[in-house]
Amino acid sequence: MASSSSSDSSAPQSPQLRKDSVTNRWVIFSPARAKRPSDFKSKSPINPNQQHQQQCPFCIGHEHECAPEIFRVPPDNPDWKLRVIQNLYPALSRDIPAAEEGNNSDSGRVVVNGFGFHDVVIETPVHSVQLSDLSPREIGEVLVAHTRRIKQLMSYDSIKYVQVFKNHGASAGASMSHSHSQIMALPVVPPAVATRLGSMKEYFDQTGKCSVCESNSKDLLIDVSAHFISIVPFAATFPFEMWIIPLDHSSHFHELDSEKAVELGGLLKLVLRKMSMQLNNPPFNFMVQTSPLGDNASQLPYSHWFMQIVPQLSVVAGFEMGTGCYINPVFPEDAAKVLREVKVS
Amino acid sequence: MASSSSSDSSAPQSPQLRKDSVTNRWVIFSPARAKRPSDFKSKSPINPNQQHQQQCPFCIGHEHECAPEIFRVPPDNPDWKLRVIQNLYPALSRDIPAAEEGNNSDSGRVVVNGFGFHDVVIETPVHSVQLSDLSPREIGEVLVAHTRRIKQLMSYDSIKYVQVFKNHGASAGASMSHSHSQIMALPVVPPAVATRLGSMKEYFDQTGKCSVCESNSKDLLIDVSAHFISIVPFAATFPFEMWIIPLDHSSHFHELDSEKAVELGGLLKLVLRKMSMQLNNPPFNFMVQTSPLGDNASQLPYSHWFMQIVPQLSVVAGFEMGTGCYINPVFPEDAAKVLREVKVS
Ligand SMILES: Nc1ncnc2c1ncn2[C@@H]1O[C@H](COP(=O)(O)OP(=O)(O)O[C@H]2O[C@H](CO)[C@@H](O)[C@H](O)[C@H]2O)[C@@H](O)[C@H]1O
Ligand SMILES: Nc1ncnc2c1ncn2[C@@H]1O[C@H](COP(=O)(O)OP(=O)(O)O[C@H]2O[C@H](CO)[C@@H](O)[C@H](O)[C@H]2O)[C@@H](O)[C@H]1O
Repeated sequence: MASSSSSDSSAPQSPQLRKDSVTNRWVIFSPARAKRPSDFKSKSPINPNQQHQQQCPFCIGHEHECAPEIFRVPPDNPDWKLRVIQNLYPALSRDIPAAEEGNNSDSGRVVVNGFGFHDVVIETPVHSVQLSDLSPREIGEVLVAHTRRIKQLMSYDSIKYVQVFKNHGASAGASMSHSHSQIMALPVVPPAVATRLGSMKEYFDQTGKCSVCESNSKDLLIDVSAHFISIVPFAATFPFEMWIIPLDHSSHFHELDSEKAVELGGLLKLVLRKMSMQLNNPPFNFMVQTSPLGDNASQLPYSHWFMQIVPQLSVVAGFEMGTGCYINPVFPEDAAKVLREVKVS
Repeated sequence: MASSSSSDSSAPQSPQLRKDSVTNRWVIFSPARAKRPSDFKSKSPINPNQQHQQQCPFCIGHEHECAPEIFRVPPDNPDWKLRVIQNLYPALSRDIPAAEEGNNSDSGRVVVNGFGFHDVVIETPVHSVQLSDLSPREIGEVLVAHTRRIKQLMSYDSIKYVQVFKNHGASAGASMSHSHSQIMALPVVPPAVATRLGSMKEYFDQTGKCSVCESNSKDLLIDVSAHFISIVPFAATFPFEMWIIPLDHSSHFHELDSEKAVELGGLLKLVLRKMSMQLNNPPFNFMVQTSPLGDNASQLPYSHWFMQIVPQLSVVAGFEMGTGCYINPVFPEDAAKVLREVKVS
């Protein structure tokens, strides 16, 4: 039996399954789960454990401890504001032959060379400064650095997709505490991206509309600016997951111009500060969800980029690993209401 | 350029992408990643933080603190060896109307009622005993309890898939330290299962063979018993991920008979002990990967159940969340060799 999608905040809520029309993912919303006890001691709050500036290779003055630089802003200036560098421990190698199509041998073993690019964006010269401490203009410059690097990587025919992401805090996976993000250029279209595109296409074929444009709804809205909105997605995979979506339909993140980047920087700063105030400065990840590179004009009508921000509040365990299905104890309407109403000083 | 799939342990290895023919997942193998430093303090080793037996509802004598019992072994015996009980904080509810097909409204919002079952298997009456401490026969009894409960749940037409899983240790998601596993009966076929079935079908259509039967290869083998093997899968998603596979082609875990369950219990015990010795007693998850319920005779030739065991060694972060693609610093051949050769006392 299909139940109403709106939540009644007075009555205890029954669990509900929702399928996201963008990610094509089933999520179980189960408020009862939030109440379960734990007999493991609660985790200590984020311990920054930050190195002194003297020991951190990402700090200004330590450029020689890093892998080679790709560019800096401003250019040729020892007093830089941000740097894009090679990752010293790259997951993919720029020094081996480009991958061709996966080789499906007799044994069914599909293998391709790990050609690709793995870069780090040092977002500030100063160790103690976090992304949300930067001004909208400075955050905009970080986003423009991402788009500029993507445009360089597009010149490689064998690069099919570029993933921009950020890990903040040790339990969100960060190994370095100095504020940074990463850019990985891949020789394959990754599975979650292929699934998302397929789902957006199906929605478009059925309704004639873009599923991301349609995810703008009053009950899920957090904030709005001239060209962007922030929302909690209807079938959020994680509690308090947030998306920032450009209002004008646009398939590729790298099409962002520098003026809109400043506006996006402002909305991202607002979302990060709200999250930090409401959820006690949690570790988090953000991911840019964009479209594959190359000749894909046919994807333009149904494919729409957005930025996904996920506070690290719950552990992915056996159920999620086994099924690819997630359990979220917080209904998106409730999360959106909280985030909409929190006042940022 | 497709490279050879075998690893040369003398030369430094280039990264490689592999696609698993069972899970249909791309994994990046990148030994260089293992060397990267972290400026966050290393995590303290597992702190069991176990409650005293007096406070744990799963301990013998505390049955009244638990949600209702479904069955125990031996039956009607206060001196029980294991109990299957309802989860007191279930993700799905057995008390609401069964879900019909997802309702795709105008808005594209697909919602179904959260009907389903969520049970806990208390694997031992004694708080300090872990699954790997039990005898092969006792582990077999736990596995038979899983299959027996699945057979009960199969009587509900609206239940499409049953996920059996175990979380061991806080950073593998466990909230309770007393040894237990969980059984969730779902009103939908979850996405990872649908993807796995699609991938196994494609392999079968192309080769006429079962992809799981074919994953048995010398370089990936850990151990073998009369009816089961343990391997590291060719495109393991996680470092030191292990699969236990029945040698006779079989689509459903619940077809396991009690004699083979004891044999499987022995191989599972061996794998857990090897993992514990080699990797310093890590937190871990195990998941039973089986086939959907209901009328699916057409799946039988290509669908083959197995058990997946994953030590919790790395953090899933922005790249994995964004792409669904994983980075594994350990080549499967190398992990298999280590696990094959470790001597269990
Ligand atoms: N001197 C130097 N010069 C240049 N680069 C340097 C450097 N010292 C360190 N680096 C690189 O800086 C990066 C810092 O990245 P993060 O802190 O975001 O997480 P990391 O990539 O380690 O792993 C997290 O993110 C990945 C991807 O999501 C997950 O696979 C993983 O489990 C999780 O911990 C590392 O990739 C490291 O290789
Ligand atoms: N008195 C009682 N009677 C009956 N049942 C009781 C009980 N007290 C507690 N329980 C239940 O016992 C279960 C113990 O399960 P686990 O320790 O394996 O992890 P949990 O399900 O909490 O969450 C982990 O696994 C899930 C699923 O993978 C993830 O969503 C989550 O993030 C992760 O922490 C809980 O589900 C709890 O509800």
